[in-house]
Amino acid sequence: MKDIINVIKIGGNVIDDSVALSAFLTDFAAIEGSKVLVHGGGREATRLSARLDIQSKMIDGRRVTDDETLDVVAMVYAGLLNKRIVAALQARGCQAVGLSGADGDLIPATRRAAEPIDYGNVGDIDADRISDRFLDTLFKAGYTPVVCAICHDRHGHLLNCNADSVAAALAVGASRLGRVRLTYCFEQPGVMTDLTDESSVVPLVTPAIFDELRSSGRVSGGMLPKLSNALRCSADGVGEVRICRATDLCTSGGTIVRQA
Amino acid sequence: MKDIINVIKIGGNVIDDSVALSAFLTDFAAIEGSKVLVHGGGREATRLSARLDIQSKMIDGRRVTDDETLDVVAMVYAGLLNKRIVAALQARGCQAVGLSGADGDLIPATRRAAEPIDYGNVGDIDADRISDRFLDTLFKAGYTPVVCAICHDRHGHLLNCNADSVAAALAVGASRLGRVRLTYCFEQPGVMTDLTDESSVVPLVTPAIFDELRSSGRVSGGMLPKLSNALRCSADGVGEVRICRATDLCTSGGTIVRQA
Repeated sequence: MKDIINVIKIGGNVIDDSVALSAFLTDFAAIEGSKVLVHGGGREATRLSARLDIQSKMIDGRRVTDDETLDVVAMVYAGLLNKRIVAALQARGCQAVGLSGADGDLIPATRRAAEPIDYGNVGDIDADRISDRFLDTLFKAGYTPVVCAICHDRHGHLLNCNADSVAAALAVGASRLGRVRLTYCFEQPGVMTDLTDESSVVPLVTPAIFDELRSSGRVSGGMLPKLSNALRCSADGVGEVRICRATDLCTSGGTIVRQA
Repeated sequence: MKDIINVIKIGGNVIDDSVALSAFLTDFAAIEGSKVLVHGGGREATRLSARLDIQSKMIDGRRVTDDETLDVVAMVYAGLLNKRIVAALQARGCQAVGLSGADGDLIPATRRAAEPIDYGNVGDIDADRISDRFLDTLFKAGYTPVVCAICHDRHGHLLNCNADSVAAALAVGASRLGRVRLTYCFEQPGVMTDLTDESSVVPLVTPAIFDELRSSGRVSGGMLPKLSNALRCSADGVGEVRICRATDLCTSGGTIVRQA
């Protein structure tokens, strides 16, 4: 296990539940070797926006990020949640270092074009530009990056990025340093063909199986972009992607996504 | 100059003024060699508290930090201001890495006793516990830590610390790695014996001069703890401490504090 770099993404539902988060962080801290934790936190951002009378506007699940909203997500993701997670991991003996994509130029991003939809201060990431040098510096010294999805454009502007995409790009970037395992932890036990039946988890998704699941309609909605993201990662140097429940981090449960 | 580690503290008044901050960051980015930037940001925290209907309570210039206020300062210092500064430095070619004292266990702190005054989640720092290993890792790889005054107790709790004290502790910690110059940048041109007369700047403060300035009443108020802090640093391995105006960062202006 020790030669594998684990990149793990934890979703907002776990971050929102302090008991579940605590259990997850204990499991994460116990993983040996180099690892990265990527976290979201959209619900907390929506709550702070509401308290500040800033309207949260989502299009296709992406937050429209005007200047005021950028301040909110920078505060919530890079400040509140990131530092809470870091302090909790430190208490568990994990040498966590909380980062945004601006820090150490870890994740340069490009502001998304205002057409066809103007998302404001939202960025897209190119995995080729991930700073594997910074990751390598931290890994070699035994530090564990804890990364939120606030990135920068290298011209002084912060950009709000998608945390799933940040995890994917970091995994592809880290694959230049060693073998990577990317794990998406979320509220379901894996990719399910029947959302009411936990035994319907698909154990393996390859490109051929993905095409079948999509065309038959057995998998739909937000899982489709997650799966096509995961398939792209597995093609881009990340050997294996797993999609599982946060409580299954240290098991082999969930759905494995790979090329064959 | 290259063998000196510069630790520079920038006060809230400059952070509050985007033009002044921009000029300061250009000067800071141009400094060669290993360096650390420590920043405050209390006014922005007070503004966010007001917007959230959280009363800001200060005793002797220190913020009483209940749980809600801790969230505010973590968001403002570690999120909003820290990441803005990092992005601006990155745009100036400086490989900035924004950190709290929890990250990499950089600055362990101890929660202050509730007697005689209960400041809540406020911590005090012991310079002996500063992680010079983490500083060294970053310096050797060419990274510049940008540090806010949110620290941790190693048991999972964040603590609000004084940014002047954070700068002093980091300077003493860094002095185990090399020769350190600590600079406090603030709104005045140095230690003044007459606050209405800029020509009254005291060029040099030693322990003997400090005693004279204090007993004669020529220096008083908030400058006294700043000076005694600076004198302690210069006794604890930091060769020289300078107190100057932010615009004087790249000059030799201001007040030099040293042992003799």
